Amino acid sequence: MDNSIRVKEVKAHVLEDNDALAAKVREGLNQKQTFLVNLMASPGAGKTTTLVRTINALKDKYKIGVMEADVDSQVDADTIAATGARVIQLHTGGSCHMDAGMTQSGLDELGIDDLDIVFLENIGNLVCPAEFDVGAAKKVTILSVPEGHDKPLKYPLMFTVTDCLLINKIDTAPVFDFDLDALRTYIDRLNPGLPILPLSSLNGDGFDAWISWLENEVEAWRA
Amino acid sequence: MDNSIRVKEVKAHVLEDNDALAAKVREGLNQKQTFLVNLMASPGAGKTTTLVRTINALKDKYKIGVMEADVDSQVDADTIAATGARVIQLHTGGSCHMDAGMTQSGLDELGIDDLDIVFLENIGNLVCPAEFDVGAAKKVTILSVPEGHDKPLKYPLMFTVTDCLLINKIDTAPVFDFDLDALRTYIDRLNPGLPILPLSSLNGDGFDAWISWLENEVEAWRA
Repeated sequence: MDNSIRVKEVKAHVLEDNDALAAKVREGLNQKQTFLVNLMASPGAGKTTTLVRTINALKDKYKIGVMEADVDSQVDADTIAATGARVIQLHTGGSCHMDAGMTQSGLDELGIDDLDIVFLENIGNLVCPAEFDVGAAKKVTILSVPEGHDKPLKYPLMFTVTDCLLINKIDTAPVFDFDLDALRTYIDRLNPGLPILPLSSLNGDGFDAWISWLENEVEAWRA
Repeated sequence: MDNSIRVKEVKAHVLEDNDALAAKVREGLNQKQTFLVNLMASPGAGKTTTLVRTINALKDKYKIGVMEADVDSQVDADTIAATGARVIQLHTGGSCHMDAGMTQSGLDELGIDDLDIVFLENIGNLVCPAEFDVGAAKKVTILSVPEGHDKPLKYPLMFTVTDCLLINKIDTAPVFDFDLDALRTYIDRLNPGLPILPLSSLNGDGFDAWISWLENEVEAWRA
């Protein structure tokens, strides 16, 4: 365990105040020209593995920071730290999601003056994180093949609010009964035009399309 | 879609009142001699597939009912109905968990006078459901192999409060880097003596041990 990783305890706010706080967070990020990505997924969908490969693909071009939100532990922050990205661990004190106020506390602790991109790895949960705008420029959701293609039916808000859907662990598709066409049909009803990018964070298949999407979004936002 | 499945909207209560309500739910179940199982897991861990195989193994011995809790949809209730078990769909109105009051509403709607066992399939979520006693006789948690063995570090409460841990999709172990020994070490710190039962709800491997565990618990509770 790397004891140099800072751990910050953050506390939940009430939902009513969140949108106003999120607008402030977004304004502060705009001023600093820091692009914040809110990365959401179920437990075990591969958020951290995806981040490691993403950071390695982009770290020569952008200065990157990561906020790892967890109920407990710092195993993910230790993994991210190995990439050389600046990382802090946020502990949510039992809370099932990050909100805008918690995100501001995290950004203050991380220090973003010199950062081009910050990834917030949200709590592993398809319900609560979808309800809270944290002030991010873009929301990205990972659905992994073993979870099944019916998840948009059960957790519709997550798939409605997100800006990009990564289908991770596509290398395991032969083992699971995952119907990408059915998934596309469900998504079309909730969020037409949503980019759906199948990839494997383990072997890198499909990663170029995701990195291109992210670079384009960052550059369009800066322009 | 089977339109004969009843759908009940249930509403969340505040945490403070929950323990008193849970005690009442439990008392009512004791009076009716109905054994309630609170089944919890991440999205896509295999709750419904596990239930289908469990019901098929036990339906000649026990009269079984199921409450399917979801934020939306009734795809799981349709799947369960095919087993012949009595099933109702609960919609939580966006709530990330079931609580004791919602459970009582569900039991009233289901009708339990003639039921030996009721399974509550909780919302797919490793955080919030762990915090709410619903009045069940036993809590059962499923962790699936693709999620990874480190989940007890990140979601400790779930693995502390549960009475039985099923490790599902064990047939996919060759594809994933899942360390069962490491998992056992993490669990020993949180919940020593917790039964950890690897199985495959797809092909039935390891299912006998789970069915035996459940039968023993039901019979011990009745005695």
